[in-house]
Amino acid sequence: MSNNHYNLQEKLVAGYDIAFDQDGVCGKRIASRLHEIAQIGLTDDNGSNRPGFSQGERLAKQLVAQWMKEAGLSVTIDGAGNVFGRLEGKDKNAKIILSGSHVDSVPNGGHFDGPLGVITALEVVEAWRKTGYQPEKSYEVVVFTDEEGSRFNSGFHGSEAVTGKGNIDEKLQLTDQAGVTFSEVLASVDLSVKGYQQAVRNLDDYELFIEVHIEQGKRLEKENLACGVVTGIAGPCWVEFTFTGQAGHAGNTPMNDRKDALIVASEFIQRVPSIPVTISSSAVATVGKLAVKPNGVNVIPGEVSLYVDMRDITRENQEQVVEKVVEAAQQIAEKHGVQLSYEEKIRISPVPIEAEFQALLAKSLETNNISPYYLPSGAGHDAMIIGEKVPAAMLFVKSKNGVSHHPDEWSDLNDCVQAVHVLKTFLENSQ
Amino acid sequence: MSNNHYNLQEKLVAGYDIAFDQDGVCGKRIASRLHEIAQIGLTDDNGSNRPGFSQGERLAKQLVAQWMKEAGLSVTIDGAGNVFGRLEGKDKNAKIILSGSHVDSVPNGGHFDGPLGVITALEVVEAWRKTGYQPEKSYEVVVFTDEEGSRFNSGFHGSEAVTGKGNIDEKLQLTDQAGVTFSEVLASVDLSVKGYQQAVRNLDDYELFIEVHIEQGKRLEKENLACGVVTGIAGPCWVEFTFTGQAGHAGNTPMNDRKDALIVASEFIQRVPSIPVTISSSAVATVGKLAVKPNGVNVIPGEVSLYVDMRDITRENQEQVVEKVVEAAQQIAEKHGVQLSYEEKIRISPVPIEAEFQALLAKSLETNNISPYYLPSGAGHDAMIIGEKVPAAMLFVKSKNGVSHHPDEWSDLNDCVQAVHVLKTFLENSQ
Repeated sequence: MSNNHYNLQEKLVAGYDIAFDQDGVCGKRIASRLHEIAQIGLTDDNGSNRPGFSQGERLAKQLVAQWMKEAGLSVTIDGAGNVFGRLEGKDKNAKIILSGSHVDSVPNGGHFDGPLGVITALEVVEAWRKTGYQPEKSYEVVVFTDEEGSRFNSGFHGSEAVTGKGNIDEKLQLTDQAGVTFSEVLASVDLSVKGYQQAVRNLDDYELFIEVHIEQGKRLEKENLACGVVTGIAGPCWVEFTFTGQAGHAGNTPMNDRKDALIVASEFIQRVPSIPVTISSSAVATVGKLAVKPNGVNVIPGEVSLYVDMRDITRENQEQVVEKVVEAAQQIAEKHGVQLSYEEKIRISPVPIEAEFQALLAKSLETNNISPYYLPSGAGHDAMIIGEKVPAAMLFVKSKNGVSHHPDEWSDLNDCVQAVHVLKTFLENSQ
Repeated sequence: MSNNHYNLQEKLVAGYDIAFDQDGVCGKRIASRLHEIAQIGLTDDNGSNRPGFSQGERLAKQLVAQWMKEAGLSVTIDGAGNVFGRLEGKDKNAKIILSGSHVDSVPNGGHFDGPLGVITALEVVEAWRKTGYQPEKSYEVVVFTDEEGSRFNSGFHGSEAVTGKGNIDEKLQLTDQAGVTFSEVLASVDLSVKGYQQAVRNLDDYELFIEVHIEQGKRLEKENLACGVVTGIAGPCWVEFTFTGQAGHAGNTPMNDRKDALIVASEFIQRVPSIPVTISSSAVATVGKLAVKPNGVNVIPGEVSLYVDMRDITRENQEQVVEKVVEAAQQIAEKHGVQLSYEEKIRISPVPIEAEFQALLAKSLETNNISPYYLPSGAGHDAMIIGEKVPAAMLFVKSKNGVSHHPDEWSDLNDCVQAVHVLKTFLENSQ
């Protein structure tokens, strides 16, 4: 923990419109809770440093568990360290409604990515307690472990344990940057491999999962809307392409006698952004990582390897983007007479949000005088993992300048509190 | 030295046409000498490993000095370790004609880059001795120290000492990869900083310098010519360009709301090769080194830095290439609304070869039944350094597949021996 005295609460409350304190929802409590979590692992830049499976994440989860108990929830912690707080519904046979997010962060990250989803889910319970409302269906607030995956460069360890998705043998091979293994890391926070495997849950008992999360983009800010309906969670597909031309001396090789792999790769990089727009407005394709060989100032590049990250919110669209990008690479390589190889590195299926839940969220927005705006989620979330087994919905909250994974990450308290109202309406309408 | 038994001599002599053994020139001696130098620092790949200022380079220079003495030359070694072998001319007041090259190599380099220029210059002396020819003008054969610059990533240490070009204070700051300083490296081969500084020579005494060198390109091979006339030595200019856009999440940022620095840089990389052809057939421009920041698969590139290596054989052309490339970068950055910064890192003036010497070399080729072919040198050579003070000429010898700085570097003995005849004719016609 830093010796810093960063008053997030004060900063949040400064611009708050107290009129949003209605129906038992309390803006100051939300600000105070965001502030308290932010103090755990506060960095010198006033950012958050609570990697998954760290003592910081564990402390933050213990803090939330305490709030849950104070709010009257019965708390259980599973073998993956996921915290569940249960509010019993009137109808004990009805399926459960689940909401929450995570409290781990990337190194020097922000204070909203994760905690906001947990705190808003819990604030609805606080409001219900205040107004004496008891839902028909049981309601659970969840904190998933290690969503960001900072420790092992692969996230969703908590939500994957719940769905039983992850391959435990692969996980046992993981080591962090210091060479510490997955099982050693579990042990360091009093977890075990056996317990992790036992965290798998019968998800047939759950009716739906709804996650509130900051947008991490600029669409809502441009529309000047507090929150919006997520239409689907785009699954990323990563393909590595390698163009192999011929290295040579930059001085001795005439311009008309070259097979410069970088020039060919550049034509491809230029082509990539023209492809997603032909498929949908939510499709994206990005060349983010690139390596030139031999990468000498006076050597014609002999080889260029690059990754294309391709996403869309339906499997068909995702496939189409990948197909067209591969076709473009092949066509460009052939035109220039250079070799091309490519390999799919990751393909995660998109999670579409059912139209029924989108409509229910839209109605909840209207009830709260927010005009419904629909937007895709380009990034992965716990809802993407849980969504494979349980119908999932997401509510995005306006981000400032689209900044995320950075101390400057910000959402106004007015917008956070409006999201609680929308979530509350949605949950009440789901009874 | 390797335990390898690589018989370069046998390989060279295998395809040799004995008819070229004329006027005292001996192909077998040339092959034997290339072979003997190749044994010093022979690598497991049958390549050469004789970095500048190494014991291997020193042994190779001692071997050449011994051959010089045997050929009747008076040998001096200057404070930079450059070896000069002098054949006294009939006219002691006439200016001296100088020829030679270097015997150091890049790590795991070839056996022709350098040694061929030294051995051919010496072979003319052998031929004159056999036929009893004494030139009017004194003739010196030179072996320059450390042309390649493998030790300090900056070459021409021998020729720069002779011209007094290098800044000694800068050289004293140099350290090799192991942290050994320039003066320590000099001491390791019994040289000193004081001696190095005293190696500067009054070059007014010299009439011209001619260097025989392998082409390290494919032009002569395409023309099926043993050797050709170098029209100029292209000076490189290196400019580093940095395009700064805006990093962002590859999933969350819509395609129409990006400032992707790599896409902008790619347009520039595509434009670069179109520029030199508008200036001359010898102009070249290459993007060889490039770095993407932050270079994450799922992050839109926020910054791309790249180097453009630009060359031509006249200063005016070199300037024009640089100007047009900078203009293109500015225009493209402005079009996309991204920031551009650029910095010139190196600019070495091209050394044009005087028309008089080109004509004399062409005539010497014709005398030896080789049709004159003119080609630029894209790479730097000792002739580029000496050429700043003394008129310089270069004769290029055909390279196989243009390969150089590699164990596969190769020139047929027939071509090497023809180069000796052309050099000999040129030197005799220069009296």
